[in-house]
Formats: sequence, C-alpha cells, structure tokens
Amino acid sequence: MTSPDRDRPDHGLLSPVRAGTAAEAATGDVALLQAMLDAEAALTRAQGPAWAGEAVTAAAQADRFDVRDLALRARSGGNPVIPLVAGLTAAVGPEAAPYVHRGATSQDIVDTAMMLVATRTLPLITADLTRTAAALATLAAEHRDTPMPGRTLTQHAVPTTFGLKAAGWRSLTLDATDRLTALTLPAQLAGAAGTLASFGQSFRWGEGGTSHALQAMGEGGQNGTPAEGQAPRTPDPTLALPEAYAAELNLAAPSLPWHTLRTPTADLAAALAFTCAALGKLATDVLTLSRTEIAELSEGTGGGSSAMPHKANPVHATLIASAAHQAPALASVLVASLASAGDERPAGAWHAEWQPLRELLRLAGGAAAHAAELVTGLRVHPERMRENLGLTHGLIVSERVAAALTPALGRARAKELLTAASRRTATEGIPLAEALADVLPPDQLAELTDPTRYTGSAAALVDRALDRKPEHPHA
Amino acid sequence: MTSPDRDRPDHGLLSPVRAGTAAEAATGDVALLQAMLDAEAALTRAQGPAWAGEAVTAAAQADRFDVRDLALRARSGGNPVIPLVAGLTAAVGPEAAPYVHRGATSQDIVDTAMMLVATRTLPLITADLTRTAAALATLAAEHRDTPMPGRTLTQHAVPTTFGLKAAGWRSLTLDATDRLTALTLPAQLAGAAGTLASFGQSFRWGEGGTSHALQAMGEGGQNGTPAEGQAPRTPDPTLALPEAYAAELNLAAPSLPWHTLRTPTADLAAALAFTCAALGKLATDVLTLSRTEIAELSEGTGGGSSAMPHKANPVHATLIASAAHQAPALASVLVASLASAGDERPAGAWHAEWQPLRELLRLAGGAAAHAAELVTGLRVHPERMRENLGLTHGLIVSERVAAALTPALGRARAKELLTAASRRTATEGIPLAEALADVLPPDQLAELTDPTRYTGSAAALVDRALDRKPEHPHA
Amino acid sequence: MTSPDRDRPDHGLLSPVRAGTAAEAATGDVALLQAMLDAEAALTRAQGPAWAGEAVTAAAQADRFDVRDLALRARSGGNPVIPLVAGLTAAVGPEAAPYVHRGATSQDIVDTAMMLVATRTLPLITADLTRTAAALATLAAEHRDTPMPGRTLTQHAVPTTFGLKAAGWRSLTLDATDRLTALTLPAQLAGAAGTLASFGQSFRWGEGGTSHALQAMGEGGQNGTPAEGQAPRTPDPTLALPEAYAAELNLAAPSLPWHTLRTPTADLAAALAFTCAALGKLATDVLTLSRTEIAELSEGTGGGSSAMPHKANPVHATLIASAAHQAPALASVLVASLASAGDERPAGAWHAEWQPLRELLRLAGGAAAHAAELVTGLRVHPERMRENLGLTHGLIVSERVAAALTPALGRARAKELLTAASRRTATEGIPLAEALADVLPPDQLAELTDPTRYTGSAAALVDRALDRKPEHPHA
Amino acid sequence: MTSPDRDRPDHGLLSPVRAGTAAEAATGDVALLQAMLDAEAALTRAQGPAWAGEAVTAAAQADRFDVRDLALRARSGGNPVIPLVAGLTAAVGPEAAPYVHRGATSQDIVDTAMMLVATRTLPLITADLTRTAAALATLAAEHRDTPMPGRTLTQHAVPTTFGLKAAGWRSLTLDATDRLTALTLPAQLAGAAGTLASFGQSFRWGEGGTSHALQAMGEGGQNGTPAEGQAPRTPDPTLALPEAYAAELNLAAPSLPWHTLRTPTADLAAALAFTCAALGKLATDVLTLSRTEIAELSEGTGGGSSAMPHKANPVHATLIASAAHQAPALASVLVASLASAGDERPAGAWHAEWQPLRELLRLAGGAAAHAAELVTGLRVHPERMRENLGLTHGLIVSERVAAALTPALGRARAKELLTAASRRTATEGIPLAEALADVLPPDQLAELTDPTRYTGSAAALVDRALDRKPEHPHA
Repeated sequence: MTSPDRDRPDHGLLSPVRAGTAAEAATGDVALLQAMLDAEAALTRAQGPAWAGEAVTAAAQADRFDVRDLALRARSGGNPVIPLVAGLTAAVGPEAAPYVHRGATSQDIVDTAMMLVATRTLPLITADLTRTAAALATLAAEHRDTPMPGRTLTQHAVPTTFGLKAAGWRSLTLDATDRLTALTLPAQLAGAAGTLASFGQSFRWGEGGTSHALQAMGEGGQNGTPAEGQAPRTPDPTLALPEAYAAELNLAAPSLPWHTLRTPTADLAAALAFTCAALGKLATDVLTLSRTEIAELSEGTGGGSSAMPHKANPVHATLIASAAHQAPALASVLVASLASAGDERPAGAWHAEWQPLRELLRLAGGAAAHAAELVTGLRVHPERMRENLGLTHGLIVSERVAAALTPALGRARAKELLTAASRRTATEGIPLAEALADVLPPDQLAELTDPTRYTGSAAALVDRALDRKPEHPHA
Repeated sequence: MTSPDRDRPDHGLLSPVRAGTAAEAATGDVALLQAMLDAEAALTRAQGPAWAGEAVTAAAQADRFDVRDLALRARSGGNPVIPLVAGLTAAVGPEAAPYVHRGATSQDIVDTAMMLVATRTLPLITADLTRTAAALATLAAEHRDTPMPGRTLTQHAVPTTFGLKAAGWRSLTLDATDRLTALTLPAQLAGAAGTLASFGQSFRWGEGGTSHALQAMGEGGQNGTPAEGQAPRTPDPTLALPEAYAAELNLAAPSLPWHTLRTPTADLAAALAFTCAALGKLATDVLTLSRTEIAELSEGTGGGSSAMPHKANPVHATLIASAAHQAPALASVLVASLASAGDERPAGAWHAEWQPLRELLRLAGGAAAHAAELVTGLRVHPERMRENLGLTHGLIVSERVAAALTPALGRARAKELLTAASRRTATEGIPLAEALADVLPPDQLAELTDPTRYTGSAAALVDRALDRKPEHPHA
Repeated sequence: MTSPDRDRPDHGLLSPVRAGTAAEAATGDVALLQAMLDAEAALTRAQGPAWAGEAVTAAAQADRFDVRDLALRARSGGNPVIPLVAGLTAAVGPEAAPYVHRGATSQDIVDTAMMLVATRTLPLITADLTRTAAALATLAAEHRDTPMPGRTLTQHAVPTTFGLKAAGWRSLTLDATDRLTALTLPAQLAGAAGTLASFGQSFRWGEGGTSHALQAMGEGGQNGTPAEGQAPRTPDPTLALPEAYAAELNLAAPSLPWHTLRTPTADLAAALAFTCAALGKLATDVLTLSRTEIAELSEGTGGGSSAMPHKANPVHATLIASAAHQAPALASVLVASLASAGDERPAGAWHAEWQPLRELLRLAGGAAAHAAELVTGLRVHPERMRENLGLTHGLIVSERVAAALTPALGRARAKELLTAASRRTATEGIPLAEALADVLPPDQLAELTDPTRYTGSAAALVDRALDRKPEHPHA
Repeated sequence: MTSPDRDRPDHGLLSPVRAGTAAEAATGDVALLQAMLDAEAALTRAQGPAWAGEAVTAAAQADRFDVRDLALRARSGGNPVIPLVAGLTAAVGPEAAPYVHRGATSQDIVDTAMMLVATRTLPLITADLTRTAAALATLAAEHRDTPMPGRTLTQHAVPTTFGLKAAGWRSLTLDATDRLTALTLPAQLAGAAGTLASFGQSFRWGEGGTSHALQAMGEGGQNGTPAEGQAPRTPDPTLALPEAYAAELNLAAPSLPWHTLRTPTADLAAALAFTCAALGKLATDVLTLSRTEIAELSEGTGGGSSAMPHKANPVHATLIASAAHQAPALASVLVASLASAGDERPAGAWHAEWQPLRELLRLAGGAAAHAAELVTGLRVHPERMRENLGLTHGLIVSERVAAALTPALGRARAKELLTAASRRTATEGIPLAEALADVLPPDQLAELTDPTRYTGSAAALVDRALDRKPEHPHA
C-alpha cells in the first residue's frame, strides 16, 4: 500500500456511469484480489487438513497485500496468481505453506475469482433493476391512459400512451433481470490441463487430511450407474473436490473443467451486454422525449452546465447511453474468446477476457444504478404530450380516418380524399377535420380526429404487461 | 424473374461455409419473400373473412413475384413490404384486395418473416448440431482413455485424453443446442405504433368475418382477473388477433409488441453467435492438432490445392473458423440495435438488423453442417498422440514427479532437484527418468514418468460428460 | 446460368440501402468472378507467352461460367479458385491450358480480385461523396448566417447556424473522401507460401515467352544499390513479375506478398467504416432535425407508408443510418483478421474477410448514394429554425447574458440574478428579457437576448471550412 | 489523496499487458487530470491577462487535487470538468478566478486532455515500435537465407525463410508506426455549441488582456482572401484563440470545432487498433512457432508456471495477443460514436469514447513494449527449422517437382505420377526422392527435393523489405 495515487491507472474519472457505484466497488482490483484469496482459502479448506484451511483462510485478507505490486509482478507469468501464491505462502508460515494452491493452476484461481466477483456484483445489479422495474410499473399504471404521440421513423404516426411506453421499458428490464438470474456461475478447479490429475496426486501422496466438506460430499465422484453396454465405472473420488470447493464458495460446481469451454464467461458477457442495451433503449427514449422541442419528460434533477445557467441535462440517460454504446462490442470480445480458446488453456484469448468482462459488470451495474435513479425521479408531462398530439392538426389519426371512410367510399376514393386533405393540413395548417368538412358530419369528424380516442389496445397491453411479475432474483 | 444473373448480388461465391447448405436455402431472399407472404396470408386468415384468407393464401406464392424487382422498389420506402403489398393486392383481385395487409405496418410483416425464417432454419442447425454431438459422443467414448499431450499456453503441460477433448467439444455443442432451442420466436402484429389500434378499427368497420382461429381463441384478450385495488378490466378482444395470427404461423404470440423491444432478435443473434463460437473452438483445436508437426488429427477428406499435390487441408475446420471469426461482431450489431431502437419504430436501428441477423443464421447453419461432416469423418491418430507425449522426454509429467518427491524431500528441495533435472532434459535431451536416476529407484521412476499414467480424472470426466443427454430440439 | 432464382441467396431484399446502386453491381458475385478472371488473364499475359495471354484473356468472360455452380464447388477446397481454374483451363483449350494459373495460389487470385473490385467500386463511392460535398458546400454557403438552436445533450444550449452544421457534414464527407483516395490497393502474386518460388520455376522451365509488360519492366527485380556494408545483391528477375501483373490490372505493385500481412484489407475496411460512420453523423442529425416537433429539415421526397397517408419518412437518412450501424462491427472483423492471419496463409481468418469486406464496400456505396440524394434534395426551413430559437424564451442566450452582467455585477451576483430569472422563465414562461427588466435597459436587453445575434464565429468558421477544397479523387 | 486503495477500481491487476508500462502511467487518471489542468491553464494563458495565466498555470498541479473525489463528483454533471473547475477556481484565489475556464465548455477541456494524453503516449508507443522494427531488421538480415517450412492452412506447403517472416513482421510494425505518426491530434476549443460565441463575448466585455500568444498569431482569424464572387470577409479575431490555445499545448489547431465531428478520435482509435493487430500477427506466429512440436522459436525468458517446473511459456506473445483480441472491438466503439455524435454535443456517444480510447492507448502501449522485449530476446532455432523441413520427406517441394516434370511429361502425366508418389510418401514414409527413383536421375532428384533450394525470391524480398526505412516518428 505504498504506491502513490499517480501509479493507480484508474480512479473512475473516465467512467462516471459507474464511479462510486456499488458495482464499481465490487469489481475493483482489491475486490478481485480478495476473491482470488477466497478461492485459495476455499481450496485449502476443501482439500484439508482443516488446520491448514483455517490458517490460509486467516491469511487470505486483501489488505495484507500490495495490489499494485501484485499487478506489476503479474507481468512475467502473465497473470497475478504466481506472485499472489508466493505472497500467500509466505503469509501463512512454513507449516501451512505446502497446503497453499495445492494442485491448482493459475486459471483455476482467476476464473473462480471472476465468477465470485460476478456472483457478488450481480445481486447489486438486479437489485437496481428491480427498483427500476418497480418504478416503471408505477409509471405504467399511473399513465395507463395518458395519450402521447407514437413516433415511427422519427415522425408522428398514430397515438400511443405513455403507460405502454413505460410498460415496454419495464418489460426489457425484466428481460434483463431474467437473463442475469438465469446465469450459472461455476467455480473452476481442474489443475494444469483440466484433468484434475494433480488433485488425485495430492490425495494419494498427501497427508490424508480431507476436509469436512469433502467427506460430506462423499461419493460425489461416483457419477451414476453405467449406461447399458458400458463397463462399470470405478467411482473417482477426485471429482468430489471441485464440488466441495465450489460449495465453499457458493458457486455452482462445474460439470466439466471450463478452462477452454468458455460458456460461463460468454453467457455472462452476453447477459450483461443485454442489460446495458435494454437500459439503453430506455435512455434513448428519455433522451428523445427530453428534447427541448418535445419536453414530454424530464429528469428529476438535470445535470448542470458550467457555462449555461438554464441547462438541465438528462444526465442519467446520457450515462446509461454511454454504457449501452460500449457493451455490445465488449461482449463480442468474450464470445470471440470462446472460439479462440484453443488447447487445454489458451494463450491470449483467456487473458483478453478479464478486462472486458469486468468492464461489463461495471457498466451494467452503473447503468442499472442510474436507471433506478432516472425512473424514480422521472417527471412526466402529460399536458405536453397532449399538446404535441395536436401538432399535426389531426394528421396523427389519418390512419383512423382512412379506415373510417373506406367502407362507404372504397379504399381508393377514401385514400384519394384523405391524401388531398392531408396535403392541405400539412401545407396550410388547416385542421384535418376542417379539410374534411364536406365528407362527414362535424360531430363524427370531431370524434374521429380526436387523438386521445385512438390509442387502440394500449391500455389492455399495459394491463397484460403488468401481469408479468418479476422473478425474485438472488433472493 | 427476368433479371439476369449479373444483377444478383450474391450467389454464395464469397461464403463457402454456407454455400449450398440447407440453411442458405432457408434464409435466401426467396425464402424471406415467401415468409413475408406467409405472414400476409396468416393475417388475412386471422382477421377474416375466410374466403379472403383463402384468396390471399392462394396468391401468396413467392414464385409469382420478381424478388429483384421488389428489392429495387423497396428503396423508396426503406423496406420491401410496400411494393410487396401492392403486388399481392393486385394478385388477389379486387374483391379480396381490401383484406390484404389490413391494419398492419411494414414492420409487422418483416419482423414476423424474420422469425418465420429463423423458425424454419433453426431445426436445420440443431439437426446438424445433434449429428455433431452424436459423433463426438462416439469419439469421446472410443477415446475415453487415449492419452495425448495437454497443452497450455501452447506448451506441453501434463497429459490429457482425446476422449476428454471430444467430450468438451460435445459439451459446447450441447450448450449451443440448448441456447437455440430455448429461444422464443414471436410473431409481430401491432400496427403503426404498436397499439393495435388499426385492428380494433378493422373489427368495428369491417364485415365482421372473423376467422375460425380468432373465434376459437375467444376471450384471449381478457387477460386474467384484475389485481387487487385495480379497476376491473374490460376484456379487449383485439388482443386475440396477434395470438390467432401467431397460431396460424406456428410462432409464439408476443406478450407485447416488440417493434422497439428487441429481445427476440438480440437473443436470437446471441444464440447464433454462441453457436458459431462454440463450433469455432472445435475448429481451433482441429486446426492445431492437424498441423503437420502435430498430426494427431486429420480431416477425413482434406481439401486439395491447385498447386501442391500433397496438400490435404483441414477445410471443414477452416470454414467453421471463418464463421466464428465473423459471428461475434455481427451479433454485436443486433445487441446495439436493441439499445438504439427508439420511439415506437426506429429509423435505421431496425433496418440495420436484417442483413446481420440473416448472415448469422447462415453462418451458424453452415458451421454446423461443416462441423457434422468434420467430426463424422475425423481421423484420430492415437499413435501420434502417444509419440508426441514423449517429445519432452518426460517433462510433461514434471508436475507429478514434483508432487511425488515433495513428501520425502520437502517442497523446496524437491523443486530444486527437479528444476535441475528438467534443465538437463530440456537442453541435453536426457530423459527425465534418467536425470533423476539418483533420486528414486528405476521402477518407481518408470511408473512416475509414464505419461499415460497421469491422465488424472479424465476418464471419469468423460463418463460424467456423456451422462448429459441432449434435449430433443424442435422434436 | 441454369440455377433458378430461389437458389440465389441474396437479391438485395434485405439491404435497401444498396439495392440497385452502382456499388452493388460492382461488388456482386458476377463482378467478383470477372475480377478473378481478370486476375488470371493478367497473370498469363504477364508471364507469357503472348498468344497464351490472348487466349486466356479471350476466355476470361464471367458470362461463360455458372457462378452458382462455382460457389457450390468452392466448398471442397474452401475457395472458388480451384473450380474456376478447372473451368478456365477447359475453356482455353489444350494448348493454352498449361499457362493458366501458372505458379499462382488461390489466394493470389482472390486477394487480387477483391482489390480489383475495390478499385472499381471506390470511384463510384467517391463520386457520390463528391456530389454530397458539393451540395453541402452550397447549403453551407446559402445558410452561412441562418441561425438555429445549437443543441447539446439534447437541450437547447446557445444558437448556431445551419451553415456551420452543413459545413461540418461536408468536412466529414471530405475526410471520408481523403481516407478512401489515400488507400493503396495492391495486387497479390506470390505463390504457395509467398516466396514466388513457383514463378522462378516457371521462368526457368517455361517456354521463355515473356510478356511485353515484363520485358518493359526489365530489371524491376534489381532493387537499388546495396546499402553500405551489405553484400552486393544479385538481381532477382522474378520480382518483376508481380509488378508486371499489377501493371496489367492497374493495381499497385505489392512491396511484399501480403497473404498474411493484411494492411491493405484492414486499411480498406477502416476507411469504408469511417465513410459509413461519417455519413451516419449526417443521417443522425437529419433524423433529429426532421422530427415532427423540430421540423427544421425535411427530405425532398419522404418515404411513404402503407397505412398512414400523411407520413413522409426521412428514408434516405434512415437507410444511411442502417449502414452506419453495421459498418464499425464489420470493420472490426477485418482488423481482427490482421492479427489472426497466422503462418504463410491463414486457415479461417482469411476466409472470414471476404463477406464483411464486400459488405462494407456495398454499405459505403449505398450510404454515399443515399447521402447524395439526401443533401441534393434537402429542404431547409429557416423560419422553423427561427421559431425554435424562441422556444426557451431567451434562455438559449443565458450564457451571453451572464457574460454581459459579469463585469458590472461580478460573477457570483450575475449568476445568482440569472439563475433566478431563468427559473421564472422556465417555469412561468416569462421571456428572459422581461424577467431581467430591473437589471438592464430594455434596448440593451433586446439586443442581448436576441438569439440571432449570438452566433459567434459561426460564419467565419463556415468560410474557413469552405476554403478546404476537395482533392480530386481517382481523377 | 485520502481515499484508501480499495476505492481505486483499477491497479492494473487484470491487464498485465500494460501494467507498469510507460503507456499506463501516461494514460492514468492522474495523467488525465493533469492534462485537463494543462488545458485549463493554456486557455487562461491564451486569453489572458498574463498574470492570470500565470496564476492558473501555477495552481494547475494534479497532486493538489483528489482525483477520486473528482471522479465521484463527476457523476452529477456527467463529466469531471464541472468539479474540476470548481476546485481550480478555488485554488487560484478570487482575483484570478474569473479567468478560469472562461468561455469554455466541458467538452473543450476533456477532448483537449484526451488529445494531450494521446500526444504524450504515442511517442512511447512508437519508440517501442521502433525498437521492435530495429530488432526485426536484424533478425531478417541474419536469417535472410535461413530456410523453414512455409505453412498454409496449417499444413507444410513449400519452404520459406525466417528472414522473410521477420521482414514481414517488421513491415507491419512500420505500417503501424506510419499510421500513428500520421495522426493529427487537434486541440478543442469552441464553447457551448461550437460557435466560439462565448470567446468573442469575453473579448468584447473582458478586460482586454490578450496573451502574447494570441497577439503573436495576430490576424489568424483572417483566413485568406475571399474566393471569387464571394463577399469580402471581415476577419474574425476570435478564430485566433483556438490556434493560440493549441499552440500553448503543442497540439494541432482544429480547422473546425470537432465536438461532433469525431474524425480525430475515430482515426486515433483505428490507428491504435491497427497497431495492436499488427503486433498480434507477430504474436500469433510466435505462439505457433513456439509450440512444443514446432519449437522453431522461443522467447528469451519464458514465463514460469506455479505447478510445472519445466514450463517456459511464451508470455510476451500471450500478452500481445491479449491486446490484439480486445482492440478491434474497442475501436469499433469509437467509429460508431462518430456516427452517433448528434447535435452540437452528444448525449452518450461522447461519454462512451473515453474509456475505450484510453484502453486502446494502453493496450497498444503495452503490446509495443512486450513486442520490443519479445523480438529483442527472441531465440531462433534454425536447426529445428531445418529438421521440420524434412518432416514431410520431401512433400514440401512437391510443387517444385511437379513443375520440373511437366515440360517432359505434360501436366496431366506429371501430376498423376506425383500424386501416386506423394501418396506413398505420405502413407509409407518413403522419401519422395525414392518414390520417384524411376523418373529422374538421383542427383537431379536430390537437388530437386532439397527444401533449402526452393526458397524462391525470399532473399530478394527480404532485401527489398529492408530497403524500407522507418520514418522518424515524433522526432
């Protein structure tokens, strides 16, 4: 802890979307260091002897290590585990030393630590998603029948309701939550080339001190009755070790070593990118609807400007958008790493995963935190929505009028009439109802051209959307 | 069908991974055109009257349309539906004309068609994945105990087995299958701005001819009892229409219009990219193990060379790799489109999805087809694996020897001895057993340094992996 | 030419941005086939004998080949050259047959053909960029002093001019043109592993019929005097062959074989993605400024809607945006291929380049074509800009007022006053000038709060920007 | 400087490729903070009065600020400038306070700081590239005639030389250097919406204290004589300000404000991704050629393993590859931001640039540093290359033999003979020369099948490649 601040490459200055968030703290290098130490301690506890497990657990405290020094010493071997093991071995003293990192490979520790960090970060993200979804449910219910312009290809099309819009945002938020909570985050423990050979070794030549956890899992290695026609299998007790280790860490037990079967990291990255993008849609809409000319929404407390006293910027939406712009490309790195993970442990494809995966956790965490604040404080301006509905002087319901005229006039004649009327409305600003005064009686025209009467099934769709209950993530 | 070949932009020349595959045929422009026509026909059948549904269904044959001409006429409106509807309307004749595309928006048709195409293509992909997994299961079982060098960071590390490697590839193949079969592919039907307003309209002013499907679904719009404290809901019969339409097409009914809630396309793209990448890992390994110097595997029928008579290139693996290199970036476009899908229907983000999504279907389909051929014909050379195990003269089991010496000598002394012996082996080529002749008796050394005896739990892991049964996709 | 339309995977239906454009035609499979044939013919002409060069040139007509059949037969070797050479050899007859594809490897032909296609497509793109830049210059000059709201973080900030906006778009268009015209597109000719060994061979054992081109280039292989201290070099006449071949094709001569030194493709992809993105900024702005509420711009002929008679969608901008959304990810595939291009010719990384590179050519070509149409027909509504400048009742010049008050009142007091006044303006709609009536005399307030008087150096910036002359691309 | 280490999100632990490099230090948050302060100081110096410029310059020391605190306070406005200006204003004292950040917008400062950071980091990168290129030149010259197997699609094809391989790597390294040194890195100064209005303002109402720099640049705003037919322009003195400011910072003067014309950042990102990818090709090859079975290269000091005493991993190549896997996707974010940079200053697209751009600088810097170490220490094993050339028992020159037999036997008969002989060689291990014993005399066969005599023009290509001199970057 002696390196000065200027040696720290990142204090959050360039990522306001996540600076100071719980997700940032849960994914920082110190948190990662702690997770690596937790993995090491769990390994010794799972292998035993118990006293060594206790000794390693006691020594495995991140604040006893200089994280910057570890980062620098990680260069020669290409990962931080080699210097970490040296440090931890020294810290536990000579007696427990042989039980540190026994049989493990660096990737066992780093992969497990990344999953631990993810396990600790995901509930922070889903908690904010849950807050977001709850606030959106309230908005959707409150504005179930609040009409506003529906916009397609940037143009007013037909009316919709703000409730339906909010319900849509909530639906995406729940989709994101579902994807995050469905993830399986397995521990990694398989030794140098994924065969667990070194662990069988340590059992055979070791002191025989098997941990409670391992004993309790007993015949974990005996994996079912042999399939027909197969030779009966000898149970392999070593298979119980990764399970015990995973249990120590509250991670899933891996069905196979995944050093080069990168489904967990690819899935995690995809779900996090989905989350950022789902919240990004919310941000995209809020940014549009906050525009000075539209002004149907505003953030509770807009961001200020150093120069312009009047400015109230949609900062939450801006920062969420900044995450959404980055996440898809970052996730593509992880998917590509799945393909490139050659051999039994890869040279480069694995190392390329770490930073983008951590960044995705942070971006999703930051985006969710800002989304929760955004929707909680969102100010909705129904009167402005109403006003904007009138901007086209009735053209926003031209579809409806066309449908109404068709039975009497036929499709072609109806379209012809309406096109002419629309042109007058668009160019001369004459209300559509007026331009059609010859065609229908005034009261029918008034009803037909009232945008608030043409929201279709929006309300029913809101009701249905709100029937979808969020699952209880990480409960 | 008058345009000459030179006007067709793509005959498959630049994508041998999918040229001529079933997935290519199922995703071609003509297939898409048919899917759009299917969507139009389903819409008329779902809305009725029945005779019009029959008329539109009869006319909705892709070969009655000039697909190139539609492509060209798609430019002015930005999508192919406008000219398609014109053509279809003309084809059905004046009586049925008013029932064509009634109430729908272009995106309803294109989105539904994309999902239809996906629905038709996915079983082709999963069928090849299933073939691939089956062949890999056979390989894994056959080579459950075939030792080969485990390689990490490109270097021999410790032994593994080819069975474990094949089991790992199979595991990824099943992961891909699971992700593809878990997809929900909904129809799209919601009208101009996603409120279904135009469909309520058509019911009110229409001839009342409601289709069988719609009648059968009856109270589909009445979605459950109101939650406590909510006003009782009036059932909205319009909600039954998308359900009837989806049922006509064997697609899932959308819970909400998803014009700008792009979970289905983002999920589909992610699963397809995952598939390409999962098969890419297989290809990466086959390419490495086929190298002239390694030669542990070879493709059944290698690709020839125009210049070098002796060449037998791993062409299947090469083409699979070509798909894996492209897919992650393509999927990132779809995830980004989820974020950018603003308003009620987006300007650009939606249009950007079509080509990458179709390309992903093709690449996954092509990669799966080549993977099935690759693994079915794969030639395994256990003798070469055995030979390669000897390349390091015993260093490949240095981990084991270290573990064996440690109890007697202590970790430090054991490591010291072994490091010295390893150096002699590496530089002078003296077998490790010989270099350690002073330390342990010959028979124990012979056993300890036999690479085939240090495959750890590989066999048990293969057994466990083979216990995982593939789900029956699209059965 | 016997395969039916339904076997053609792409007729342009899913890519309206480029359907029917010159760039699409120039990059279609038939154009690629012709380019491969051109490469083969140039090779024979460069190597001689002359009569064989003539024979191959005569036979090298794309319409004599079935492009779909070639695509299908490309699968077994992984690229279309093997079947193409078989076909071409048959076509030239037995005497010239030995001179077909002599010494070349498949990648020589495909890489050269891709560069030829690029060479033929880039002038189409830059011509449209030049049209775009010219129209933008006119718009910038016409609207040099047309005030409009400057918008930052979606909010009105301070005034700007439409001329400056147009000048900025033009600047990006010129940047794109510069990047495209700066590209070096080399031919590829180096034989199986990039050593040209097979060509030396063909010279030694050949009939000695050296082409005119090769003779003219004479001592092309003798590359300069040896550097000091180096042994004098023997001139290697074989090096003249790629130069002669490149000269036949009007491509640059490669300084080194680039089978795995993929600078040309990575650069080309980057420049094309830049082009799409640069035009994407134009599209982004046009989409915003075309919004119903803003309405400061509209496309000359908006795209229609099947359902809504009044709609005039900004279709050009939409389609340009669709290209901009896809291009950066596609380019990333090519840059990644540069890194992955292992060995002397790569397995997969090369094959992955073809489709994305072609797609980038098409997207850039399509985007440029639509941009030219968009800006040529763009309708500017200065009166609406003026109207929108008033939307904030003077707040859009709050920065100016603050600066004006500061000298007299001090920064703190000035800010305090203005913040209070701004709040009244924002909430009560009172014009800022009125809210400040106590502070400054009315005429000074009127001048100070007139948005049209606070456009700063916009006009001078336009003048400077228009001083930048486009270079003459591909002249 | 009071926040504890655990609050720092990144100490370099997950990015060993750049941990501890000069590029990491030059791009850290503290370096960025200093660059922002440098920008602020330059702004006051450029605007004057001189005493204020001195005061601000004196106060603009990063170590006087708590960078973590700034990061946290950046959230409310979305960027770190607002709290920074508050802090700097306080630090300079009340008299100079009004001259801090005068007329500037946050983006002016952040963009300029990013360019400053880039300006300071690029020479570090190019210095390492120059070291890399120099070492590669030596390797290429030394091994100009060292034969080794040329490999295509993973298989031995025909011989090449290691000199040609090294020359190719050098060529890419020079390409990267060229691209980095060609970059133009402009300062940014244009005020709230890019019109410079606030600076004209400060001149008009200010104290008139114009800096030396600004006076010296004199008529900088008078930009040339008017083009024919244009009204004579009034020189706009404000345009001199950005030039003076840029001159203070040794950055290029912007021709136009580039708040939303993101050519500089897109170009920078593209060049950095190119650099990572170019070095990635080197890493890809080194990883392959270091494989245990190939062993033609080894890193000077391989990375150790915690478990396997014999391991010497190619760690430099691994870490370079880790950068190459990430960079293309990161660059795609910046290109996409160019397209998304709407309005006069964007909401999100801009904020999304910061972290990926900084990461690219670090990755390129780290990759270059490791590349220089890698190639400087690279151990080449020509004897192993020679040995590997014999692995195919002569098949590696089958192309040559085919060419030699053709004139006498005709193409078809020659191919037939050779295919049969090749099959015997491949399956029975009989040397090709022996299998062809009936066809040609032994001495001719010996010469023909000697791989070291079939390196073609490799040596001449090396000579030509070495004639390319590196430009002197940032000299």
